Amino acid sequence: MHRFFAFRKNGTIELFDEDKKHFKVLRIEKNELLELVIEDKIYEAKFTGQNFELLEEKTKPPDVKIYANVCIPIKLQTLETIIDYAVQGGVFEITPVFCKRSFQDSSKLLEKYQRLQKILKEAIKQSRPSFLPKLNYPISLKDITLQGYGIVFDSFEKPKNDLLKDNKYTLVFGPEGGLSKEEVEFLKALGFNTHSLGDNILREELAVFAGIFMIRCKL
Amino acid sequence: MHRFFAFRKNGTIELFDEDKKHFKVLRIEKNELLELVIEDKIYEAKFTGQNFELLEEKTKPPDVKIYANVCIPIKLQTLETIIDYAVQGGVFEITPVFCKRSFQDSSKLLEKYQRLQKILKEAIKQSRPSFLPKLNYPISLKDITLQGYGIVFDSFEKPKNDLLKDNKYTLVFGPEGGLSKEEVEFLKALGFNTHSLGDNILREELAVFAGIFMIRCKL
Repeated sequence: MHRFFAFRKNGTIELFDEDKKHFKVLRIEKNELLELVIEDKIYEAKFTGQNFELLEEKTKPPDVKIYANVCIPIKLQTLETIIDYAVQGGVFEITPVFCKRSFQDSSKLLEKYQRLQKILKEAIKQSRPSFLPKLNYPISLKDITLQGYGIVFDSFEKPKNDLLKDNKYTLVFGPEGGLSKEEVEFLKALGFNTHSLGDNILREELAVFAGIFMIRCKL
Repeated sequence: MHRFFAFRKNGTIELFDEDKKHFKVLRIEKNELLELVIEDKIYEAKFTGQNFELLEEKTKPPDVKIYANVCIPIKLQTLETIIDYAVQGGVFEITPVFCKRSFQDSSKLLEKYQRLQKILKEAIKQSRPSFLPKLNYPISLKDITLQGYGIVFDSFEKPKNDLLKDNKYTLVFGPEGGLSKEEVEFLKALGFNTHSLGDNILREELAVFAGIFMIRCKL
């Protein structure tokens, strides 16, 4: 079933411009079922030929909420892949993080936010989670908050295989080159645990997917 | 520690041409430690300034051998990413598979093999597994053999969460659009089980990584 982003206007439902294009390309037929995302809800809907009839709400909050704090890659374009992969992995919220070895230029990053929100929407359409993951504005490492069980994934840390069960996980992914020792100590003092993603070296985008997916596998 | 592919020649050790370039770019210094892959073994070695001195063999066969049979994507270039991701995930052997909805042109695929072997080498250098994963020649779905516990990942199958412990796993990843019902039945008759990668829809390259990584997480 295809998924589109829409909004309400004068009692009818209208697709956003880009979704209109996509809708045409797919040649959706009269009476065909589809999914519409309106504000923060997902609906099953029917195309009536003229407009859409909402059938039932299908939003289902995740059993486990995964908050991913991702150090902003030096090659900023990688952040697009990270957002895409995090959504496919089942993330609940993504927060880009400035740290010692991350990308540093916040105004350049903010200029890119519209594009990043678009990447998020595309990923939500493509991988069709039953809830709507969110992309937050960037923060500094020192402003990370811990909800539920906290994990720092950093290549310099030894593996630790026991994962406490919780319904919330806050993850921190270090940048290429890793977090500094002080940054890891700061997060540990906040209550974060260190885990490893195995012996192989993973590129940052794949590490983010692997960390989120690992939690969903172990539960 | 950097890793290079090398070969023996008249009692000395020589890097392959591409690795020579890479070696120069990295400005490896005299007495620096590195890893050399020679034939089917991985060594820790020291750069003597002129040549290399092998210190110890570091090849370590994986605890679990994962054989991934991957239906060949219609967009053949995706196979490059699949190979890269499978190595990062920890695959032991990758075998591209022709099936009903896969890419079909075997001569075109074979023309590409040199490039695919190069992608494999690059992934081995980058993610540095402790063993050397192998890329096999393509086979037909009906020639898939089952070693250890077998799993078909196909989006149309219901989730099944119990994974039997084994030291060998044979995985089959369907193409975009899925395996046909007959193909799934054929594999089940061979002894394969069906599993799901969760509710989200994953793109083929990420599904291959997720399937391999899931096994390593659950063990």
